[in-house]
Amino acid sequence: MKQVTLWGLGSMGSGIAKLLRRRGIPIAAVWDRDQEKVGTSVGQLLGDGLGNGVFVSQPDENYPPPGNVLIIATGSFVPEVYPQIMEGLYAGQHVLTIAEEMAYPWASHQKLAENIDGAAQAKGVSVLGTGINPGFVLDALIGFLSACCSRVESVYASRVNDLSPFGPTVLKSQGVAVTPQEFADGLEDGTIVGHIGFPESIHLAASMLGWTIDRIEQEREPIISNTKRETPFITVEPGQTAGCRHRAWGYSGGRCVIQLDHPQQVCPDVEGVSTGDHITITGEPSLSMDIQPEIPGGTGTVAVTVNAMEKLVHAAPGLRTMADLVIPSCRQ
Amino acid sequence: MKQVTLWGLGSMGSGIAKLLRRRGIPIAAVWDRDQEKVGTSVGQLLGDGLGNGVFVSQPDENYPPPGNVLIIATGSFVPEVYPQIMEGLYAGQHVLTIAEEMAYPWASHQKLAENIDGAAQAKGVSVLGTGINPGFVLDALIGFLSACCSRVESVYASRVNDLSPFGPTVLKSQGVAVTPQEFADGLEDGTIVGHIGFPESIHLAASMLGWTIDRIEQEREPIISNTKRETPFITVEPGQTAGCRHRAWGYSGGRCVIQLDHPQQVCPDVEGVSTGDHITITGEPSLSMDIQPEIPGGTGTVAVTVNAMEKLVHAAPGLRTMADLVIPSCRQ
Repeated sequence: MKQVTLWGLGSMGSGIAKLLRRRGIPIAAVWDRDQEKVGTSVGQLLGDGLGNGVFVSQPDENYPPPGNVLIIATGSFVPEVYPQIMEGLYAGQHVLTIAEEMAYPWASHQKLAENIDGAAQAKGVSVLGTGINPGFVLDALIGFLSACCSRVESVYASRVNDLSPFGPTVLKSQGVAVTPQEFADGLEDGTIVGHIGFPESIHLAASMLGWTIDRIEQEREPIISNTKRETPFITVEPGQTAGCRHRAWGYSGGRCVIQLDHPQQVCPDVEGVSTGDHITITGEPSLSMDIQPEIPGGTGTVAVTVNAMEKLVHAAPGLRTMADLVIPSCRQ
Repeated sequence: MKQVTLWGLGSMGSGIAKLLRRRGIPIAAVWDRDQEKVGTSVGQLLGDGLGNGVFVSQPDENYPPPGNVLIIATGSFVPEVYPQIMEGLYAGQHVLTIAEEMAYPWASHQKLAENIDGAAQAKGVSVLGTGINPGFVLDALIGFLSACCSRVESVYASRVNDLSPFGPTVLKSQGVAVTPQEFADGLEDGTIVGHIGFPESIHLAASMLGWTIDRIEQEREPIISNTKRETPFITVEPGQTAGCRHRAWGYSGGRCVIQLDHPQQVCPDVEGVSTGDHITITGEPSLSMDIQPEIPGGTGTVAVTVNAMEKLVHAAPGLRTMADLVIPSCRQ
């Protein structure tokens, strides 16, 4: 029987809480630092008609986290979630997080990844970073499709999505509605980051294909709008940026084996751009896959996290990736 | 270290043998009843330039089968491969087969499936039926894609393929180049069968989605050609059949939850039909996936068998399905 502590009740955390509640998986505690939420019942915050449930509390109030699974939806980077993961492991919990860098944490933080692996193995529990991207579309799905191939020469995958539903924080980090010069400056000073997760996806896909990645190159370029684009949160004038086209290339033995392309912008449809996920595997046989429109990043990440949890609790102890799981699915 | 006995060196078995040899996986024995092949070296028969390897022998000559994995590529139905599977299990081997009914053998032969499961558990080894269809496109891939969904209401999937490369045996079983009346008669007397594997795919996908299937309906109808169609093996005149459209519906709780559509014909392009694999999941979120052209059934089945073997040998002992495997991939 699973019992979950949920750390972080933002947009993703709330979606995860709703899905857990709908599936009848008990939530033992919900932790969040937001004083607006602390002390309020989860049922009231979610408005899902499933009763009050637990009350949101400060992370430090209930140490150690109760239950046997900890789900962390607080940050994107390994160092942010590392102490939170360790709290769960000390308490003997399986840990899942949607922190992008945790999809393949060895890519950015080898030493912290080793610490997590050691602590998880010592406790006999498992840790997983997951999500739609990284975690599914540009890595695990590539790997699974490759099961139909006797040989893979190279992979090209793209994810074209629409940033229109997103609020100011995301739009700022993607460099939306600025001049080309401001975009260049933002890349320089780190306020514009593009997608988080390319090194993770490349290493994760490569691990499934038996490739060692020697080098990764990335490029972020502005998507300049020719038209006026409007969302509830922002207006883009012609000549301003509609978003960021972020690409990455993974090399093995000096050869580019994985190429990923992820243009993110508001209102792509106004300039005739259809959204979608695409994978081309060049090999024996070659394959070409399209999902149109793209798998939604938000609701998809919520689902894949809860669905992966069902497999993670039966996985071998240690720090795991999506590639280590029994094929996850929506067992409702 | 894996060592394989390969039982059956027809078209699929030869592809599997080639891939095993290319990957440096030792083949301990190759068994086939064809007197034309018995006594000849595998290297000579395959012409893959990788040396002679073992000599093909009669199945009964080398009992018990040597090595720790048995791959069976001899027939489509559970009763055909059951004694062969049992020989492998008695010898303590993991067993893989491309027999279509073995993708989910409980669907057609509950008792034999239980026997296989019991024997495999007693020996601490695993058994798997796999292939592209059933085994991947219309079942495991549906399940894996559903990992992005928090709820699945229903599934529609189709596989439109081209029978042109296939020889007389397949064309006859699909009812190609006959009159509509001969097609109806062939369905009646069992010489025209359409696709083998719909109940298996429906149950396998349902097992991943947490559904119990109460009832399956199937329908086979002739694809009448409006044009002359020619392949190296057959000529279809206008008004004759170009193939068989085989459909199936799986019901759970009285509701149709899985619908599969598999029109197979020669030269679909001459009447503007594109081949491809398609999956629509209706749920939260809904997803629509296309692979165009379709994943090739022949080379794909060879690959998925060898790739699945890498995961099967680490699976829990017993009779398994693709849904029980750690995500398979092409680790070359």
